[in-house]
Amino acid sequence: MQWTKVLGLGLGAAALLGLGIILGHFAIPKKANSPAPQDLDLEILETVMEQLDAHRIRENLRELSREPHLASSPRDEDLVQLLLQRWKDPESGLDSAEASTYEVLLSFPSQEQPNVVDIVGPTGGIIHSCHRTEENVTGEQGGPDVVQPYAAYAPSGTPQGLLVYANRGAEEDFKELQTQGIKLEGTIALTRYGGVGRGAKAVNAAKHGIAGVLVYTDPADINDGLSSPDETFPNSWYLPPSGVERGSYYEYFGDPLTPYLPAVPSSFRVDLANVSGFPPIPTQPIVCALGCPVNVSVYNRLELRNSSNVLGIIRGAVEPDRYVLYGNHRDSWVHGAVDPSSGTAILLELSRVLGTLLKKGTWRPRRSIVFASWGAEEFGLIGSTEFTEEFFNKLQERTVAYINVDISVFANATLRVQGTPPVQSVVFSATKEIRSPGPGDLSIYDNWIRYFNRSSPVYGLVPSLGSLGAGSDYAPFIHFLGISSMDIAYTYDRSKTSARIYPTYHTAFDTFDYVDKFLDPGFSSHQAVARTAGSVILRLSDSFFLPLKVSDYSETLRSFLQAAQQDLGALLEQHSISLGPLVTAVEKFEAEAAALGQRISTLQKGSPDPLQVRMLNDQLMLLERTFLNPRAFPEERYYSHVLWAPRTGSVVTFPGLSNACSRARDTASGSEAWAEVQRQLSIVVTALESAAATLRPVADL
Amino acid sequence: MQWTKVLGLGLGAAALLGLGIILGHFAIPKKANSPAPQDLDLEILETVMEQLDAHRIRENLRELSREPHLASSPRDEDLVQLLLQRWKDPESGLDSAEASTYEVLLSFPSQEQPNVVDIVGPTGGIIHSCHRTEENVTGEQGGPDVVQPYAAYAPSGTPQGLLVYANRGAEEDFKELQTQGIKLEGTIALTRYGGVGRGAKAVNAAKHGIAGVLVYTDPADINDGLSSPDETFPNSWYLPPSGVERGSYYEYFGDPLTPYLPAVPSSFRVDLANVSGFPPIPTQPIVCALGCPVNVSVYNRLELRNSSNVLGIIRGAVEPDRYVLYGNHRDSWVHGAVDPSSGTAILLELSRVLGTLLKKGTWRPRRSIVFASWGAEEFGLIGSTEFTEEFFNKLQERTVAYINVDISVFANATLRVQGTPPVQSVVFSATKEIRSPGPGDLSIYDNWIRYFNRSSPVYGLVPSLGSLGAGSDYAPFIHFLGISSMDIAYTYDRSKTSARIYPTYHTAFDTFDYVDKFLDPGFSSHQAVARTAGSVILRLSDSFFLPLKVSDYSETLRSFLQAAQQDLGALLEQHSISLGPLVTAVEKFEAEAAALGQRISTLQKGSPDPLQVRMLNDQLMLLERTFLNPRAFPEERYYSHVLWAPRTGSVVTFPGLSNACSRARDTASGSEAWAEVQRQLSIVVTALESAAATLRPVADL
Repeated sequence: MQWTKVLGLGLGAAALLGLGIILGHFAIPKKANSPAPQDLDLEILETVMEQLDAHRIRENLRELSREPHLASSPRDEDLVQLLLQRWKDPESGLDSAEASTYEVLLSFPSQEQPNVVDIVGPTGGIIHSCHRTEENVTGEQGGPDVVQPYAAYAPSGTPQGLLVYANRGAEEDFKELQTQGIKLEGTIALTRYGGVGRGAKAVNAAKHGIAGVLVYTDPADINDGLSSPDETFPNSWYLPPSGVERGSYYEYFGDPLTPYLPAVPSSFRVDLANVSGFPPIPTQPIVCALGCPVNVSVYNRLELRNSSNVLGIIRGAVEPDRYVLYGNHRDSWVHGAVDPSSGTAILLELSRVLGTLLKKGTWRPRRSIVFASWGAEEFGLIGSTEFTEEFFNKLQERTVAYINVDISVFANATLRVQGTPPVQSVVFSATKEIRSPGPGDLSIYDNWIRYFNRSSPVYGLVPSLGSLGAGSDYAPFIHFLGISSMDIAYTYDRSKTSARIYPTYHTAFDTFDYVDKFLDPGFSSHQAVARTAGSVILRLSDSFFLPLKVSDYSETLRSFLQAAQQDLGALLEQHSISLGPLVTAVEKFEAEAAALGQRISTLQKGSPDPLQVRMLNDQLMLLERTFLNPRAFPEERYYSHVLWAPRTGSVVTFPGLSNACSRARDTASGSEAWAEVQRQLSIVVTALESAAATLRPVADL
Repeated sequence: MQWTKVLGLGLGAAALLGLGIILGHFAIPKKANSPAPQDLDLEILETVMEQLDAHRIRENLRELSREPHLASSPRDEDLVQLLLQRWKDPESGLDSAEASTYEVLLSFPSQEQPNVVDIVGPTGGIIHSCHRTEENVTGEQGGPDVVQPYAAYAPSGTPQGLLVYANRGAEEDFKELQTQGIKLEGTIALTRYGGVGRGAKAVNAAKHGIAGVLVYTDPADINDGLSSPDETFPNSWYLPPSGVERGSYYEYFGDPLTPYLPAVPSSFRVDLANVSGFPPIPTQPIVCALGCPVNVSVYNRLELRNSSNVLGIIRGAVEPDRYVLYGNHRDSWVHGAVDPSSGTAILLELSRVLGTLLKKGTWRPRRSIVFASWGAEEFGLIGSTEFTEEFFNKLQERTVAYINVDISVFANATLRVQGTPPVQSVVFSATKEIRSPGPGDLSIYDNWIRYFNRSSPVYGLVPSLGSLGAGSDYAPFIHFLGISSMDIAYTYDRSKTSARIYPTYHTAFDTFDYVDKFLDPGFSSHQAVARTAGSVILRLSDSFFLPLKVSDYSETLRSFLQAAQQDLGALLEQHSISLGPLVTAVEKFEAEAAALGQRISTLQKGSPDPLQVRMLNDQLMLLERTFLNPRAFPEERYYSHVLWAPRTGSVVTFPGLSNACSRARDTASGSEAWAEVQRQLSIVVTALESAAATLRPVADL
């Protein structure tokens, strides 16, 4: 070819290439620079579901429950190290893990001078001494680490008196005895577990001058009536005749000496004389229930002890300042295979599976995941409460949700979830995709709906979530911080047992073999709970749009409103109190929640900016906070959530309203009690109006 | 050419073009898809500074102060309409504006039966009646809309008694009289304004059995000693002899009937008999100060009235859920040219300039800007408080800062800013760029530093910011919600006057001419305040990185700590209380704040993702919230900020600690008072530890 031709071709080629480059750069929109935002990855989810291993959960449980690990005991400390080791493992650990220790006031029986209950004969001699320990049936009920059954925080003392049977020790039980003309002053009340809280039995009794309280477990309440050795553990899941339930009799939660302050060494301690919430009179759980006079000798001692939480973190890739918290306590009364190790076994398996994906570089969540192993829960949710006191602000500002798995398996029949309405949808989504461990080819969701269900005006028949009391470490998160929370477990078929709780609860018979043989042979229910919790964690931490459905609060509010109208409306009207503003507030909430739902749907159809979605997610995350009012119930320590505070009134409506009405009912119009009804009504209306305001488009006033 | 050649060339050309397209698309990074994030635009800032017009401010003031506009009066309502009209103007209005009305308890003198103070002669006859109104000097002091001087919320009553001069009515003034053997029971105390709060005079007096309180303005306190008509307004800025200061004598703030609840119609009202904070005995401000017996007749009446806030919004373009709040009250005692219309005149000019840019499409801020005109401030910050009660959650979650301009010009000498430490840097940045109105070519900053300055360990000599008490509508924002706040004004050269406040404060002489002739002829100080506030608003609403410098809190904490060590250390040591944990907490805060500052600097050098910056900005915005503890001072209504609550102790340190030490000082170790010292110390330590924790990298525990 001629060089001119070559030149010409070369120039032409260069021009074409250049044109191509220009076209390529400007004319074709570039995907790579605005990559799809990180969202829930269904393959990762599938992998996690597959890898959660029943056998490993079983091995975790075996190790965790090998020895008694009472809060602050050497074995409890060993487990702190075990958790740290697992969470720092280079192949399957988390980004970081550390123990944090509080100095808290616990209560123990004296080793030298055990608590004693003696039955006294007509001549004053001791005719029978109650067992001080449980019978060593499987070889695990003996030894120095098995703490004697006792009522933690009951004062020491040696009252003597006639034994009076007081049913469950409720206020009405003592009133009933009074009505029957029975003298209560100076007696010893024999009460059975259940009905009212442990501490309440002693509080109620003391009001009548009773000198001491005994508490026993009625086989009818826990063993479906069975009580012989053949019929009980190790031959069945029922409690052996010598089993005695331990427990904390403290009325509040958190370290008793540092209310609202973390129990770090420098924090102010309330003088012991000013501590409230301890049972006022000596109290002791026992096994036998006989008549005649008794001597009760309680030698409990209060001790300042170190108790640790262990915290492990997986750092979020995109929004590290948003936390999905997952926790369970670590301490038990004795071996605690069910309570709490069935939960901790799952915690370890979940952290292993997620940690392995993390360490392999396969996955890192959008938001941070925090795993927590709480200390001294059995004494009153102490570790979790101190944690919330220490980090109140950052937890309240940043926590998406708290997930609690304490006793993970009560029994094999069905899932049971307690939680606030915004978590309902994420639990439903998770459980619809996981196979139920029982017979048939049902999802956990489909199995669940057979046991617990309700008719929702929005969704039709759905599984019903229970509400959160203060039975485990979720309590400070929901009641004190206003964080959407849930508690997940597998539980009973109520047609098969009426046991108040699994029979060996808080006894020395709650052991590995008990779980392995009776509660969940094969550990498939454990696996089901692990998968449910795992899926919920992934959905909350990875979804671009937070899967918290705030409009599901509308049903709760509507049902509370209807109960107020039906069961209190006439009474309120008699006292010239209108429910009108409450109706308006509920309607406003419903409308705003629905409108927000619409805006989310619209946004989901487009390709929204991550900042836009963040603003929306903040509205979802923070809704629950709007129901907090630290001045609503000043006498109820920590309880600030105006929808879920303890309800003593009989009407299932807003607790402040229900309680105030129940107290005002027999007083005249214009009384202080009726003013309190009006105040409580205003508190709820203001909270609902404020909640609706936070759901409105953010630039509206 | 041969067709094969043509084909070959064609194919080659296509290949080259294709290669070019591929190269262009994939190999050259595309700028257009990641535009620079919206940030402060210096040109817009310059435009705003230029357009803020002294003449327009003057015209605003003329209109605003044309008539008396006492809270809830018809003229106050007219001004609501004026604000709405301005903020809805199609050329210069905001995105939206609305009035919101509360029903609140105000207090007025009776029109039919005016309050009277009579001097009684030796025979019991009235020998002199104090003036009931101010002299009509300029034609504006007469007419039915000029409210009689009175003590709002003082109870009605007609006490008679000997007049006793009680200085400023402080507790020590009455103690001094007692020491002198003067019988106080049944007397009328004559007190002068200043020293203690208005209501406190009556509270202190009543403790000694005093029957009534008179309050007068001493010319020495307000007029630099001058008092003749020639020397006073309209001949100078000094108060005419007949001038009497009105004021609210309510001890708390917010609507007295609805503490912690918005005063909407449905809210619970406390029974009048249970309201606390009103002066306990009849009280009346007067002009004359004579000896001998007096009859005091107070006929004040409490009335439920509607009072409105007006709110206007400019919607943020990028982060509409972050609010920069700017406000002032609207109500006055009489014409209120200075208090509050000098601030409202600026509010209107600022909203006009920004509104015009908005309506032209020239500008929309990154974050939302909310303008507020509060009602019934003079009666106790009522409008602003009710607003914070109604929207507590969304304001607390989303508000970047609150800027208050109430009295904008006390005098012409210098800027004066009160605020919390995080706002110092943005005020400094703004004022360095604005020319001072005075002589010379100084910036506002350089002029300011001549009048108020301090030596900062970090910055050297800087203007000193005052701290925020409860003198205007910033109080609920800083004390109840924990929002970083500031109050901006121009003020005196203290070498030229010792007036307690500008002389016509709360009298009928606070008129347009007073401002126009004496306070700020030419309105250049008004313009300087408008520019300062405007620049601060723009910087807070437009800057990509929030210009809140949280590390500036370190100096405050360090100085509080040093005061505690120097002035309380020995005393605390005597009672075995260690300041060690406080030292550690302050050091931790300092370290974390400095480290956060470093991370911000590093990030600013790169091109960070808007989501990353948002997370960081959230840390800055929310720091102030970590100092709130609603349980710290349960007896101090609304005050929850552990650094800025009222301090009664003499040591300038953490107020809870200072106050508790001052109460414990004379009690024995182990007393309740010393336990309270320890509790207050723990509250501060916990707050500082919590604050430090929120400043740490967000994925650290």
